[in-house]
Amino acid sequence: MAGNTFGKSFTLTTFGESHGPALGGVIDGCPAGVPVDINTIQKDLDRRRPGQSAIVTQRKEPDTVEIYSGVFEGKSTGTPIGFVIYNTNQKSKDYTHIKDSYRPSHADYVYDQKYGFRDYRGGGRSSARETAARVVAGSIAKQLIAPIEIQAFVSKVGELSLPNPGAISDFSYIEQNPVRCPDAEMAAEMETYIKQVRKEGDTVGGVVTCIAKNVPVGLGEPVFDKLHAVLGQAMLSINAVKGFEYGSGFAGASLRGSAQNDLYNEDGSTKTNNSGGVQGGISNGMDIYFNVAFKPVATIMQSQETIDNKGETVTMEGKGRHDPCVVPRAVPIVEAMTALVLADFTLRNRNSKL
Amino acid sequence: MAGNTFGKSFTLTTFGESHGPALGGVIDGCPAGVPVDINTIQKDLDRRRPGQSAIVTQRKEPDTVEIYSGVFEGKSTGTPIGFVIYNTNQKSKDYTHIKDSYRPSHADYVYDQKYGFRDYRGGGRSSARETAARVVAGSIAKQLIAPIEIQAFVSKVGELSLPNPGAISDFSYIEQNPVRCPDAEMAAEMETYIKQVRKEGDTVGGVVTCIAKNVPVGLGEPVFDKLHAVLGQAMLSINAVKGFEYGSGFAGASLRGSAQNDLYNEDGSTKTNNSGGVQGGISNGMDIYFNVAFKPVATIMQSQETIDNKGETVTMEGKGRHDPCVVPRAVPIVEAMTALVLADFTLRNRNSKL
Amino acid sequence: MAGNTFGKSFTLTTFGESHGPALGGVIDGCPAGVPVDINTIQKDLDRRRPGQSAIVTQRKEPDTVEIYSGVFEGKSTGTPIGFVIYNTNQKSKDYTHIKDSYRPSHADYVYDQKYGFRDYRGGGRSSARETAARVVAGSIAKQLIAPIEIQAFVSKVGELSLPNPGAISDFSYIEQNPVRCPDAEMAAEMETYIKQVRKEGDTVGGVVTCIAKNVPVGLGEPVFDKLHAVLGQAMLSINAVKGFEYGSGFAGASLRGSAQNDLYNEDGSTKTNNSGGVQGGISNGMDIYFNVAFKPVATIMQSQETIDNKGETVTMEGKGRHDPCVVPRAVPIVEAMTALVLADFTLRNRNSKL
Amino acid sequence: MAGNTFGKSFTLTTFGESHGPALGGVIDGCPAGVPVDINTIQKDLDRRRPGQSAIVTQRKEPDTVEIYSGVFEGKSTGTPIGFVIYNTNQKSKDYTHIKDSYRPSHADYVYDQKYGFRDYRGGGRSSARETAARVVAGSIAKQLIAPIEIQAFVSKVGELSLPNPGAISDFSYIEQNPVRCPDAEMAAEMETYIKQVRKEGDTVGGVVTCIAKNVPVGLGEPVFDKLHAVLGQAMLSINAVKGFEYGSGFAGASLRGSAQNDLYNEDGSTKTNNSGGVQGGISNGMDIYFNVAFKPVATIMQSQETIDNKGETVTMEGKGRHDPCVVPRAVPIVEAMTALVLADFTLRNRNSKL
Repeated sequence: MAGNTFGKSFTLTTFGESHGPALGGVIDGCPAGVPVDINTIQKDLDRRRPGQSAIVTQRKEPDTVEIYSGVFEGKSTGTPIGFVIYNTNQKSKDYTHIKDSYRPSHADYVYDQKYGFRDYRGGGRSSARETAARVVAGSIAKQLIAPIEIQAFVSKVGELSLPNPGAISDFSYIEQNPVRCPDAEMAAEMETYIKQVRKEGDTVGGVVTCIAKNVPVGLGEPVFDKLHAVLGQAMLSINAVKGFEYGSGFAGASLRGSAQNDLYNEDGSTKTNNSGGVQGGISNGMDIYFNVAFKPVATIMQSQETIDNKGETVTMEGKGRHDPCVVPRAVPIVEAMTALVLADFTLRNRNSKL
Repeated sequence: MAGNTFGKSFTLTTFGESHGPALGGVIDGCPAGVPVDINTIQKDLDRRRPGQSAIVTQRKEPDTVEIYSGVFEGKSTGTPIGFVIYNTNQKSKDYTHIKDSYRPSHADYVYDQKYGFRDYRGGGRSSARETAARVVAGSIAKQLIAPIEIQAFVSKVGELSLPNPGAISDFSYIEQNPVRCPDAEMAAEMETYIKQVRKEGDTVGGVVTCIAKNVPVGLGEPVFDKLHAVLGQAMLSINAVKGFEYGSGFAGASLRGSAQNDLYNEDGSTKTNNSGGVQGGISNGMDIYFNVAFKPVATIMQSQETIDNKGETVTMEGKGRHDPCVVPRAVPIVEAMTALVLADFTLRNRNSKL
Repeated sequence: MAGNTFGKSFTLTTFGESHGPALGGVIDGCPAGVPVDINTIQKDLDRRRPGQSAIVTQRKEPDTVEIYSGVFEGKSTGTPIGFVIYNTNQKSKDYTHIKDSYRPSHADYVYDQKYGFRDYRGGGRSSARETAARVVAGSIAKQLIAPIEIQAFVSKVGELSLPNPGAISDFSYIEQNPVRCPDAEMAAEMETYIKQVRKEGDTVGGVVTCIAKNVPVGLGEPVFDKLHAVLGQAMLSINAVKGFEYGSGFAGASLRGSAQNDLYNEDGSTKTNNSGGVQGGISNGMDIYFNVAFKPVATIMQSQETIDNKGETVTMEGKGRHDPCVVPRAVPIVEAMTALVLADFTLRNRNSKL
Repeated sequence: MAGNTFGKSFTLTTFGESHGPALGGVIDGCPAGVPVDINTIQKDLDRRRPGQSAIVTQRKEPDTVEIYSGVFEGKSTGTPIGFVIYNTNQKSKDYTHIKDSYRPSHADYVYDQKYGFRDYRGGGRSSARETAARVVAGSIAKQLIAPIEIQAFVSKVGELSLPNPGAISDFSYIEQNPVRCPDAEMAAEMETYIKQVRKEGDTVGGVVTCIAKNVPVGLGEPVFDKLHAVLGQAMLSINAVKGFEYGSGFAGASLRGSAQNDLYNEDGSTKTNNSGGVQGGISNGMDIYFNVAFKPVATIMQSQETIDNKGETVTMEGKGRHDPCVVPRAVPIVEAMTALVLADFTLRNRNSKL
């Protein structure tokens, strides 16, 4: 059983390789009557697109989505929504140098071992290009779960980090800067740093923080499909992610219970939110917030020693057009996966009571 | 659709509340021929059991498992393995004080909201007692995936932490001390600290590190069921878990690509292991290692203000027999969930090639 | 991936062999608030039980169900409902004669081939004893889908058959006779015939017809999970079933469109019901009706030639206490599976619209 | 949870409406290394295509498939296979007459009720046009399960039927006649009859028989996913199917055990095959055979009274280009669904033993 479907009631199945004719997906389980606006979807896709600023990859991928089914007169019909994004700017010859060799910290080696061979062009299925399909589906999911609002942003690049990202409430500057950091001063520092790293032919990691507001009480399905557990899977399934924490997270491991516990107000809200909006795996009506750690992009513009598929040492030069830092473009992907998770649990929660 | 089944090929469905007649589970998809030894299972259960040392809860739960199906003449038959653990030491009256009130940072409030009412005795389904069923299934899963070896241990309690837990290779002291920390000196410090915390009527969080050795190349199913993504869900589904990171984890977000990348040896192994044994969501044959952050237990032996189900403020005293620090007993649970994940991917990987 | 779970939103996972300590199941996805009355369940179980009349097997299996979780104060809690039925009357030594030999038209041979060995006692997992767990779950499902009413009955035994079973509306006599045929005269004939067959050491097949009333419009999920398709799987998964047809069924293959088509009344009901209550895989509000064909029980009280596990010819004598005709006891099983299907689609249909 | 995915290990998800831009599907779980030849697939599609003979609908749908992913250098890569068939010959205006009215025995009414509105053009999602995607996937499945051979044919049209279709072994004439009946004389009679029915503006039902040879022992997963149960669901999910029976089928309900039982030869094969190749839900190595009953096409070229969406009686004239008898074109669809079922169980069976 393969792993290209996400969700149980609102499900997304994606297909497509980096350099095949097209990628796309099928959403099954979207209820009838959800507004589906192609321009809104395209706007989300454009936030993920390469070439949108000076600090991301300069590849040109227009990423235009075509919806082939499941939508009629501007609304979902309850039948599967199939969509396709054509690959129009592949330069497959860029990748002949990796046909027989394994790029360090890429998936080349394990794909060859697992499947016996691989579509080596541009990383094939292991390319983050696949996430474009997630953004399309996430955009539709957002319509389903309104008025929930999901906002992600960059809270860390290398050693530069915002002090208390879960508490940020002014999101207005996020889309005003290429780093997608909500703080103007920090955004400028990060941008400078990323440019410096790129100049050195290197890459750098970072952290994306995500906050979801207006989440109703009751989303999440104990015991294995706790809300934060499935959010964790969703985030960790994004390329280059190395860690996930919600609420007090890893810092909570240092706390005492008397400091961690969130006391109630009389309306059921809590005075603090160390729980990150989730108790016992179920949303409690407070803001959901979590952090997602991304490693630096593995392709660097420096020569590295590696091996070929005969096990012999070869030297590999970095080639192609790659991101020096992935987190600015990861922001819409994190939001999309969050929307998919919340849409799925919204539908599943309809069956919690008789 | 509820969430009490884990896995897709090797599946575990659990049932049971803290204070009902019994809890248990059904394993479906265990191939025929796996040795199933009740004594081995019981040994794993005993490591999770309350009352095993001075620093855990003093509740007496013998936790004896009975296997009702799927095993014949000491081996799995390929049919579902049903098992039950009777609840024999419930003191339901201990919990009448929470019948109408919501314990801070517990699941009481969200269960009432989601389901309309709840089995309030001992936390009902939200109790960590449910994890006993996971330990039973994990014990059988370990037999299926031999010779993979899984070892978890406590690497942090409050502010006390081991420096580089992923590099630890001597596991001999882990079961020699009640904290389950592999370092004797640190173990003693942690034990003293936990006792101090308990004396103050408080609780404290911690981190469990897990290492899996002898993992073959190829486990994990892109794109959504990446090995580390499902491991993340598995760990985050354990009660009180707040974060998950693998390989270089959150620290990897600070690194540059030139430092993070793992270069190959000629046999396909890597010189470093920042990847934590997983590349592109697929095991690469190196040790898998990850950290799991646990928050402090929410039940403290101090009085806390909270609300009742009419939204009125009440004062709640901590009662019952609870753990001052959950990580020592969480070690076998982390191992069990790891075994379930690796068993599931082992079976799924059998279909990667024609 | 094994096959012991049925349903997608309201799911039943069963476990247990004929002669192990117990069989049972877990229902996951039952919404909170469904009345669960142990006496009602027991009544359904008693209709399936051996030894209830002179024309069924005289084995004594009291089949008492114990519910271990998911029910509190008489109602489902939204958490999994685990239940167990102990095996108390196994005579395992009755089955030593089949340990190494394969009974004709039983599953002995294929289990040995598929799994490498088998629990040979009483057919092990392939025994129809497993259906007791289905009856328990079906009984709970019926409470969930009220006011839908499900009634099955025997419409054929051997060559004796009711002329137009889908049109029968008086169900009062069904539980008044051991055959469970709604027509008194036919019931008497069938009973006499079954006794005659048994006297000859033989067995005979039959047909169970099922009618579901008060089904709302909208149940069923195109395109693969059409209502009648999943009903078909459900029925065909019952031991000894050889065929399924709904509405005009196989006879409909002989019809012309002008005769088959059901014309509408102004309220959306139809003047005829050749559709059997299902159009395009979705219930249309008319009665659902279908027929289920059962082959004769394979165990006959005559000597048959067969082979042992070395491929050598042996003679096998029929032993044990078996049904001469399975359809009377199949009636509650057909009803239970129908209830499971309708419960699952009832929950799934809640997500058809925004 | 919607129902547009079939299979558990080898899964097909389809999308598309009759008159949208395109339909298609995603196969997930196809192992790497399966030969995928676009010409072979196209040949299967052409057998399903409208306009292929004088007795089927004269619509022109070229049905050219494009594969967008999962295939590299002529072989499956183990990643999802996405494919699309463009709709090029829709005449949507043909359907404005059904926009507000409900065709008798079509899915118009139930779609409107279930989803609140519907894409009325050409039946939308309820159109049998969706089965083109199944044929594509089935064609790939056949490569995976070689050397299993699957052959379906028409065994009945109206009252004209072959006497013992399960015993037919000469398949050479099937593709030589437009009815796809293996017997030349009967084929001619059926063809004449279908033409007569069409001339009368009517339609007629029929039966497709399917035989699978070279099936290994062991396919099928008790208890709910018995081989014949899932075959039954697969067939009943095809548009217009009213019944399914395998082996002795409904006729078996009239038999005695002594006549039904299949006695063994010393090699494990059986002297008769009333079991239809399946015992206890698992293939036994004998030919699998089954019958599928199709009702007559609901669209007739006669005027019928029906209702509109305000519940008022209207008269509807048959329009469009429709099949007078669906079974000749159903033959490749039955084969495709059979291949999907056997491919899924082939993969699932790999996990039956340690």
